[in-house]
Amino acid sequence: MLNLSNNFCLLYLVLLLLLGFGCSPNKSTTPTSPQKETIIENLKRPWSMAFISEDEVIVAEKDGDLLRVNLSTKERHIIKGFPSDLADSIMMVKDKFEFGIFPKDADGYKTKYNAGIFEILIDPNFKKNNWIYVSYVSQNEEEKSTTKVIRAKLIEDNLSDIQTLFVATPYSHGLFHYGGGMTFGNDGNLYFTIGERLFNEVLEPEIPVAQDLKDKRGKIYRLHPDGSIPDDNPDFGEGAVDGMFAVGIRAAQGITKHPETGQIWFSEHGTVQGDEINLLEKGANYGWPVITSGKFRDKNYQPPNMEERTFTDPVWYWLHTVAPTGLTFYSGDEFPLWKNNLIVPGLSRGSLWRLTLDGATLKSAEELFLDDRVRTRKAAVSPQGKLYILTDETNGRIIRIRS
Amino acid sequence: MLNLSNNFCLLYLVLLLLLGFGCSPNKSTTPTSPQKETIIENLKRPWSMAFISEDEVIVAEKDGDLLRVNLSTKERHIIKGFPSDLADSIMMVKDKFEFGIFPKDADGYKTKYNAGIFEILIDPNFKKNNWIYVSYVSQNEEEKSTTKVIRAKLIEDNLSDIQTLFVATPYSHGLFHYGGGMTFGNDGNLYFTIGERLFNEVLEPEIPVAQDLKDKRGKIYRLHPDGSIPDDNPDFGEGAVDGMFAVGIRAAQGITKHPETGQIWFSEHGTVQGDEINLLEKGANYGWPVITSGKFRDKNYQPPNMEERTFTDPVWYWLHTVAPTGLTFYSGDEFPLWKNNLIVPGLSRGSLWRLTLDGATLKSAEELFLDDRVRTRKAAVSPQGKLYILTDETNGRIIRIRS
Repeated sequence: MLNLSNNFCLLYLVLLLLLGFGCSPNKSTTPTSPQKETIIENLKRPWSMAFISEDEVIVAEKDGDLLRVNLSTKERHIIKGFPSDLADSIMMVKDKFEFGIFPKDADGYKTKYNAGIFEILIDPNFKKNNWIYVSYVSQNEEEKSTTKVIRAKLIEDNLSDIQTLFVATPYSHGLFHYGGGMTFGNDGNLYFTIGERLFNEVLEPEIPVAQDLKDKRGKIYRLHPDGSIPDDNPDFGEGAVDGMFAVGIRAAQGITKHPETGQIWFSEHGTVQGDEINLLEKGANYGWPVITSGKFRDKNYQPPNMEERTFTDPVWYWLHTVAPTGLTFYSGDEFPLWKNNLIVPGLSRGSLWRLTLDGATLKSAEELFLDDRVRTRKAAVSPQGKLYILTDETNGRIIRIRS
Repeated sequence: MLNLSNNFCLLYLVLLLLLGFGCSPNKSTTPTSPQKETIIENLKRPWSMAFISEDEVIVAEKDGDLLRVNLSTKERHIIKGFPSDLADSIMMVKDKFEFGIFPKDADGYKTKYNAGIFEILIDPNFKKNNWIYVSYVSQNEEEKSTTKVIRAKLIEDNLSDIQTLFVATPYSHGLFHYGGGMTFGNDGNLYFTIGERLFNEVLEPEIPVAQDLKDKRGKIYRLHPDGSIPDDNPDFGEGAVDGMFAVGIRAAQGITKHPETGQIWFSEHGTVQGDEINLLEKGANYGWPVITSGKFRDKNYQPPNMEERTFTDPVWYWLHTVAPTGLTFYSGDEFPLWKNNLIVPGLSRGSLWRLTLDGATLKSAEELFLDDRVRTRKAAVSPQGKLYILTDETNGRIIRIRS
């Protein structure tokens, strides 16, 4: 690392200023805003992507397939051999279930809800072992569904040696909030989120799902890449589900690792407001639904008194709905002042956020592209540091954010 | 202006990266966040300041005096000769007035509300003519008050030749929303905001104050510096108040000029949400209370139908309460990427915002100092481009924002 003097910093600022003039396209001193460039189109609601190389990515489509896509040549191949229990969409009879939001239909009718493939990760040693990790919605013969985490060998365009690492039983008719976010920690372990699968808190049992240590749902897990449980996982007491790393989770989708500190951060969807950014801590309880930074959908809902439990506050919560999802740390060089900032897409209103951190403290929050919103599921950074976003559209896109 | 090639831009990015390393205090690649440095303390709720030179400023205290302050030596002098009708605080019997928010007290009791000195501007030719311009709360013998705009000669620490440029009659007991923001345009004219002086829309007359072209309140004015009316002011029809430049204003405090385009921008307080950033256009009607991006305090309030009028939308409105106030454009070199960004303090929760514009389009909105909030009344930039904020505290401060 360079070790420059304060005088050099002054020079740096002068250079910034002078060169800023030269790079501005409109002959004004106003710096250029970041730009969007569509790289790939016609994806079926892409949920995530993972880089095999600077140009070659695996894309998980929520409403479609696992694809191998070349960002330069635009070539794409469907990856064959995906497990047949994949529910790429859930057909449900509306009036059979208490969702708490949908008006009941007297006769009941089938309607399509989103499910499908969520996160795709490649093994840190992918070049040697060919393992990839996938979370998706598994559906059983009763048309009930839940979140499943698998790994498989990807050789060319084919999956083989499929191993199930986790199934968030029970299978249920409950909609939404499958979770499915995944990341590798610096410890080589696989971290993933499982949602509580309820849309409205009136459906909570006496011990709320996310607070029930014997219930798999509403938790964050840590497993070895082969699905075994690390010896030093936190102890949640007798009868607690194996593999749990943190509890009290409502609907966390995005989870990512800080490129320098190795800290793991995750986003969580609130109900009415209450959208949060959290720092993952071993054994922590994030409080849902006993404490929340938002409001309950059902104004009459009273969470149980659980004052004997210790709850961990979010690092940040918004005062309006954002629906934050697949976040990532920016590690590129194209936007030097964004280094190690947390990039967070929001499904609601198609927002994109840049959060500046100092350790576990949020210093600033910038909403980008106010005049060019698109419902975004994921932000991802290439090995060389290029920033991409994936749009949650029927004609889904991979967009590069460039200077 | 330099005319550099695209290759130079690449070099620029590389330089940014390399030098970014050197300037980071923690030997990490994470760029440094902006810092706060308190320059002056013990001010009585400072509302604004104007630069006589890089170091010497006139500070207007809402709860106090007009001061001449040296930011380097910290020396300060009270400016003598301020008009005696200044209401530095309003003593009111609560139950006499319909505020719409305060619980009525059976006996009525006196309580203190904020008033005082608001904006201070110095004449562009101050060095030759010694004129300064001040907006403040004038109180009459009946203890009624309103906004007054004056100019006076400032020689050393004394005011003389005081001229009244505008009085927003009628004097009333109505609280809040005096307005009082002022700026000079590139046309050499003085622009200022007058609030509608109502706190709750249930108090609106049949023709709402801000829509009544014969009522001085709830408007933005443009006058020559001597108080005379420019010939090319917009025509609001017969009987309209002289000097009006735009109408339909609820509670605009901050108003400022873009340093390059000369466009004038202003902030406006909403009721429940509805806090806005607006671009000032000649003759425009900003809609209050017929249209608003927020909600009414009184859920039963129905504004009159005025569909024959054309309303101008805000450029930006927040989805939560900000209470934006004395905004300014950043024109310094210390934060090169902030060039020409709009810096907006918010009274609510002590927020500070950086808005990036492209013409009349908002590109991004960053909330700064999330972990170090202070109720801020004003942002100001020195002649050499240093950024300052004034805190709305009983121990008010001038804080420099530095890299």
